[in-house]
Amino acid sequence: MTTKASIWLADTLGYEFNDVQLLQQALTHRSAVGANNERLEFLGDAILDFVVSDTIYQALPDASEGDLSKLRASLVKKTSLARLATELGVGDFLVLGGGERKSGGHRRNSILADTLEAIFGAVFLDSGYVAAADVIRHVFGKRLVEFPSIDELRDPKTRLQEWLQARGMALPEYRLLGVTGKSHNQHFEVQCSIKSGAETAIGGGTSRRKAEQDAAMKMLAMLGEDIQGE
Amino acid sequence: MTTKASIWLADTLGYEFNDVQLLQQALTHRSAVGANNERLEFLGDAILDFVVSDTIYQALPDASEGDLSKLRASLVKKTSLARLATELGVGDFLVLGGGERKSGGHRRNSILADTLEAIFGAVFLDSGYVAAADVIRHVFGKRLVEFPSIDELRDPKTRLQEWLQARGMALPEYRLLGVTGKSHNQHFEVQCSIKSGAETAIGGGTSRRKAEQDAAMKMLAMLGEDIQGE
Repeated sequence: MTTKASIWLADTLGYEFNDVQLLQQALTHRSAVGANNERLEFLGDAILDFVVSDTIYQALPDASEGDLSKLRASLVKKTSLARLATELGVGDFLVLGGGERKSGGHRRNSILADTLEAIFGAVFLDSGYVAAADVIRHVFGKRLVEFPSIDELRDPKTRLQEWLQARGMALPEYRLLGVTGKSHNQHFEVQCSIKSGAETAIGGGTSRRKAEQDAAMKMLAMLGEDIQGE
Repeated sequence: MTTKASIWLADTLGYEFNDVQLLQQALTHRSAVGANNERLEFLGDAILDFVVSDTIYQALPDASEGDLSKLRASLVKKTSLARLATELGVGDFLVLGGGERKSGGHRRNSILADTLEAIFGAVFLDSGYVAAADVIRHVFGKRLVEFPSIDELRDPKTRLQEWLQARGMALPEYRLLGVTGKSHNQHFEVQCSIKSGAETAIGGGTSRRKAEQDAAMKMLAMLGEDIQGE
């Protein structure tokens, strides 16, 4: 198992461990016996944040601190890391306790994301900062070269507001049209309107906020700004 | 100004900049003209988090991930950084816009903390990871060697619960005794009682949660566990 994982890592991540025990620990979920990856994840999470920060700082000299923060958050969030881990095949090498294994823990997003962070932490302990940064950049590949546009990272309400302000136009108005469904399954409907246009956009969602974002997105689309945020 | 700041940094932080412009930028608040320190703060915040994570990971091999997270949060929080920046005399070298200067911006905690982070980011750009880590460890001094006990970082309710569980005792009960004051200035009073003891402790605060924490702290004190959290 350890040897197989070691070969996989050497092939897939372009890194070979000096201390294979560290890799073993990085792959071991807390549900299993023995040294697990929780502490390594703590370390790996921090080095990942820093390497991503450094990379986007250098790559985007004109981006504001706020935009860099949004971009970093989108790159290191659990769902992004879980997707990366899945592509790399991390799930095949996870060491899980019996219960977690039976309930499909090797496919669980949070476990995959945490394990990937733990691997980064283990590489840092094994070979230092430069090696860990190399592995992170290798794993992220073009995700750390071709970034989503900053616009895509902003939420639709913010983008609509900025779009209007940039053109000296009044702020949009949101009006709750109605709420349907029972207390735990409500659907909100909101209308977004702008002073300068006769158009209104109607959005829906499971909360008032989501309905407003949906309405703002539809208004942006009507204005020709139909970039879809995540 | 720049030269004076450069000498101060060399003396106080044990570091001399190759590119003095970077130091100048790190000391420049966004209220002033010219390149400011917001982007450097983004970078410095990330490297600080990582260096502190690495240091406490190595220093406390038995600490859990949760305890490491609490310790890191207490070390890098804005008030801790502002205190460090004040001790170092960062305020004397800040470059502020007119308005901020008049309103005492050089003593404002958030500005001091951000500037210190920006200095760490500037050192990293100037000389790389090892130099930045050295400066951070130099600045933190014994704060990165002698840590507060993990107990001090836990909130009183958690500590009380753990204390009782470790002794096989039932969970404490919290009862709201009363709320006084008008809506924006309320005072809550809560009673904490434990099954095994006749004693009860009464705590107060501006929210129910704060009153419960206060009551738990008093109960801990009555039980002889009077370590005060932050």
